[in-house]
Amino acid sequence: MKVAIVGSGAIGLYYGALMERSGHETHFLLRSGYEAAMAEGIAIETPEERFTVRPVRGHRSSESIGECDWVVVALKATSNATLAETLPPLVGSRTRLLTLQNGLGNDQLLSRLFPENKVFGGLCFVCLNRVGPARARNFMLGSVSIGPYATEDAAEACALAEAFRAAGVKTRFEADLRLAQWKKLVWNVPFNGLAVAAGGVTTDRIVESPELLAEARGLMAEIVAGAAALDMEISPDFVEGQVEVTVSMKAYRPSSMIDFVEGRPVEVEAIWGEPLRQAKAAGASMPKLEMLYALLKGLC
Amino acid sequence: MKVAIVGSGAIGLYYGALMERSGHETHFLLRSGYEAAMAEGIAIETPEERFTVRPVRGHRSSESIGECDWVVVALKATSNATLAETLPPLVGSRTRLLTLQNGLGNDQLLSRLFPENKVFGGLCFVCLNRVGPARARNFMLGSVSIGPYATEDAAEACALAEAFRAAGVKTRFEADLRLAQWKKLVWNVPFNGLAVAAGGVTTDRIVESPELLAEARGLMAEIVAGAAALDMEISPDFVEGQVEVTVSMKAYRPSSMIDFVEGRPVEVEAIWGEPLRQAKAAGASMPKLEMLYALLKGLC
Repeated sequence: MKVAIVGSGAIGLYYGALMERSGHETHFLLRSGYEAAMAEGIAIETPEERFTVRPVRGHRSSESIGECDWVVVALKATSNATLAETLPPLVGSRTRLLTLQNGLGNDQLLSRLFPENKVFGGLCFVCLNRVGPARARNFMLGSVSIGPYATEDAAEACALAEAFRAAGVKTRFEADLRLAQWKKLVWNVPFNGLAVAAGGVTTDRIVESPELLAEARGLMAEIVAGAAALDMEISPDFVEGQVEVTVSMKAYRPSSMIDFVEGRPVEVEAIWGEPLRQAKAAGASMPKLEMLYALLKGLC
Repeated sequence: MKVAIVGSGAIGLYYGALMERSGHETHFLLRSGYEAAMAEGIAIETPEERFTVRPVRGHRSSESIGECDWVVVALKATSNATLAETLPPLVGSRTRLLTLQNGLGNDQLLSRLFPENKVFGGLCFVCLNRVGPARARNFMLGSVSIGPYATEDAAEACALAEAFRAAGVKTRFEADLRLAQWKKLVWNVPFNGLAVAAGGVTTDRIVESPELLAEARGLMAEIVAGAAALDMEISPDFVEGQVEVTVSMKAYRPSSMIDFVEGRPVEVEAIWGEPLRQAKAAGASMPKLEMLYALLKGLC
């Protein structure tokens, strides 16, 4: 298939490189990483292997890519306002869109921009950092959960999940994308948030502080309660598993924390604002998330 | 009377200078400000006047001050561990001790160190900053509330309040010192705390942000509920007055925020930790204060 990767952070570089390697015609829409990618290729490191995609089908504008089978949006949600301009040249009547972005509201935006096209969401449970302009490092092979924004597109989501699997990614099909998004918030809300608000710290500093770990668990409980108010159930085992996996991550730098310490925009609305608004509108009490959101909005 | 001022931050310099000017033999135990105070005096600025105390009865050690009628403790609570060593030379059998420190637990500590002596607390509702080694600026003439740690010492607290009044300070006698301390927390907990946790901001940034102001009000409500759990009543009018006075302060830099941005220790336990522990032990729910405390403990 012909694939466009929009956004060349760690997520876009990594999954795009895997798609290209597995035989898909993968085009990268690049900004700051363009020169490096064209000169040296896109370099990927994982705990199991290193490889470089070279030459790269790199582009500075979506016009030179043209219509694709799949458009994968891997931008920071803070840049979503640019999509109305960059996406149309990539999207024809049969193009499907996949957002791999953090937080809530991204699938909804794509569906609003392209109401005739099918939209899918992918949740990346992975420790990925961009470590150079065209270089991504995967610290812990994780998984991607793919689901349809509109549930009637389940078959196509399954096929996409299969393509990711063939590219070497552990992939789950998620019939309930919204639930999967809230499950991802169970990690992102506390650990991305506290890592920023506690001054730009790694996750080990959170799990090793009895007070911060208690707050992480308190935030997780609020997300579970918020999901419940929205008629979704997240099990205590899932929550406990998220704590355990965080302990095993050691000194991991969550993506929002990296954005914060490097002075880049942080996805405050997608990760904290939108879940807070949705859960409160459904009647949930979120005192800790309110505090964290207000501080992050002030800090970032 | 012979008075020792222990701690030469804004509070010690300001009230000590007023006591000296009003005729009390006031000795200052100084560290970093010693040279400046001896060379140029202690300079005070208020919205109404400027004056300098010169010569200053400055000392580098409490031994050279000797026994006093009153010992006024104006140290940061984070330095309380030094008091067991610095105070004894100042304290004889009839010496009374007054803590002008922030937060909870300071009067208790003095009473533990000197169980035979009378201990008093003074709450400073004032906008004071140290603006040079021996220079304090009062931005808004406030008031001091003085009360006895043990209620049977009310008469002496009244007399002390009278001495402060004679020195030009608007002073209240507080029969219930503990209540007065919790009332002070109604301001200190949200505004010192959020000013630090939102990245070292002035109070106008808090009152101008709908989210941060809502969190300030949420924290105030938790302090009122915590006080209620401890059988103290703080009226909604008092709380509203604290919001109003904060609006009128404009771009005020709370003392903890100054300590934070200048890399000095912040009184995290006295202002946030101890109230949280006391209120939770009394059964109050403090989700926002827990979050703020955990972040401040991580940040400071």
